[in-house]
Amino acid sequence: MYSIGERINGMFKSVGGAIRDQNPEPIYQLVRSQLAAGASCLDINVGPASADALTAMEWLVKTVREVTTAPLAIDATKPEVIARGLELSGPGSIINSTKGQQEQLDIFVPMAVRHQASLIALTIDENGIPRDANGRSEIALRIVASALEHGLEPDRLLIDAVILPVNVTQPTAGHVLETIHNVKLLSDPAPKTVLGLSNVSQGTTQRPLINRTYLVMALAAGLDAAILDVHDTEMMDAAVAAELLLNRAVYCDDFLKAYRS
Amino acid sequence: MYSIGERINGMFKSVGGAIRDQNPEPIYQLVRSQLAAGASCLDINVGPASADALTAMEWLVKTVREVTTAPLAIDATKPEVIARGLELSGPGSIINSTKGQQEQLDIFVPMAVRHQASLIALTIDENGIPRDANGRSEIALRIVASALEHGLEPDRLLIDAVILPVNVTQPTAGHVLETIHNVKLLSDPAPKTVLGLSNVSQGTTQRPLINRTYLVMALAAGLDAAILDVHDTEMMDAAVAAELLLNRAVYCDDFLKAYRS
Repeated sequence: MYSIGERINGMFKSVGGAIRDQNPEPIYQLVRSQLAAGASCLDINVGPASADALTAMEWLVKTVREVTTAPLAIDATKPEVIARGLELSGPGSIINSTKGQQEQLDIFVPMAVRHQASLIALTIDENGIPRDANGRSEIALRIVASALEHGLEPDRLLIDAVILPVNVTQPTAGHVLETIHNVKLLSDPAPKTVLGLSNVSQGTTQRPLINRTYLVMALAAGLDAAILDVHDTEMMDAAVAAELLLNRAVYCDDFLKAYRS
Repeated sequence: MYSIGERINGMFKSVGGAIRDQNPEPIYQLVRSQLAAGASCLDINVGPASADALTAMEWLVKTVREVTTAPLAIDATKPEVIARGLELSGPGSIINSTKGQQEQLDIFVPMAVRHQASLIALTIDENGIPRDANGRSEIALRIVASALEHGLEPDRLLIDAVILPVNVTQPTAGHVLETIHNVKLLSDPAPKTVLGLSNVSQGTTQRPLINRTYLVMALAAGLDAAILDVHDTEMMDAAVAAELLLNRAVYCDDFLKAYRS
């Protein structure tokens, strides 16, 4: 599993405060702790509260780049904020994210090509989030077509089938599993798949249990990557065990130690 | 998930001793603790050490029946031992188990019909355990045909695709998931599926982690039942969470409490 650490996000109080005060220490710490916990990539989101998102993104990416060369997922809604983040983070970054309507794809797919970045694309369009797996898969197909058209390799696409909280809509978890399975059949090479995992448990009383259980199911359905709380050791261990059982990693008696970090 | 408690098995020292000494107390305790932990059915196996398996089975079933009317899975190799266990345990029991070769099916399928029992059937035949999902599915189809021929409803069949230790053969776990998926398409109504779960982690250093991770995957693939250690609370919680996420049980904030026992 390609793990994208979710914690450098201005919606968390310590990160929001660090951005406001231009205090790099809490950011350094989250970079180091997430990489040590097994993150392959770090999500970078200035959060909803930043009055000047562009300046905040500049400061945040520069600060992170002072302590790591790891890939970054530049997470914002405004294209100009994402583009600036990509410039500062360098090639091999990830755009997080585009939706599936044409006008957004026409902005973000060429941006990914220009910056040698990968692209997270949500199966959402102008009509919102589809009700079932077919609707999600149709949008995914449109996204793949747009990538091919603009010269972005499908395996640099990360299709996110948009998991919703299980206490709000119970059938969605199954629809998303089915979509993950479908997406792997859309092209050759297949697009990658990703989930913003923590959303599945939002508002529930058993967040870690629900997160790790759903992650295991999604990996079995073919999930490649997840944006998640890499500090949750039990969940990361479950992911390692799942990959052994799916024969994507080699078993050894010390497998937890071997695959941590 | 239909949970079959695995602990009343003579291969465990306390149970072997209780059978030898005809001491009912340890058996009573395992009946009560497994039912309290959420078992729907109890596996009854006198173990390999009993010199007189028939007498041991008689004593064990009678002892269990003194404290519960719950369904029992009569687990032995000799047909006459299973038949006697079924007589004493009554209708609604489970035969554990037949293999898929014709001579075994010709004994156990009619036995299931005669005793109004369900039948666990392993996807093993005279050539051993097939290497992949196709081989397992072919044997499953032969089992279903035999059930139909003898008048056993397919949904009283529990096909066991034979999981092996992940440290011995890593590809098997995936083959078994694929077989579970295939089996659900073999007839209408579909056969049920079951696993002797603990075998997946035999000899590994992380048995509970591997057991619960594989159980979640198998449930997502369509598993109906498992023979397992119901005392493993973390695993039972993972199964409950999986069934919520698969929309097979209704979410409520108190779901762990609601679905325990």
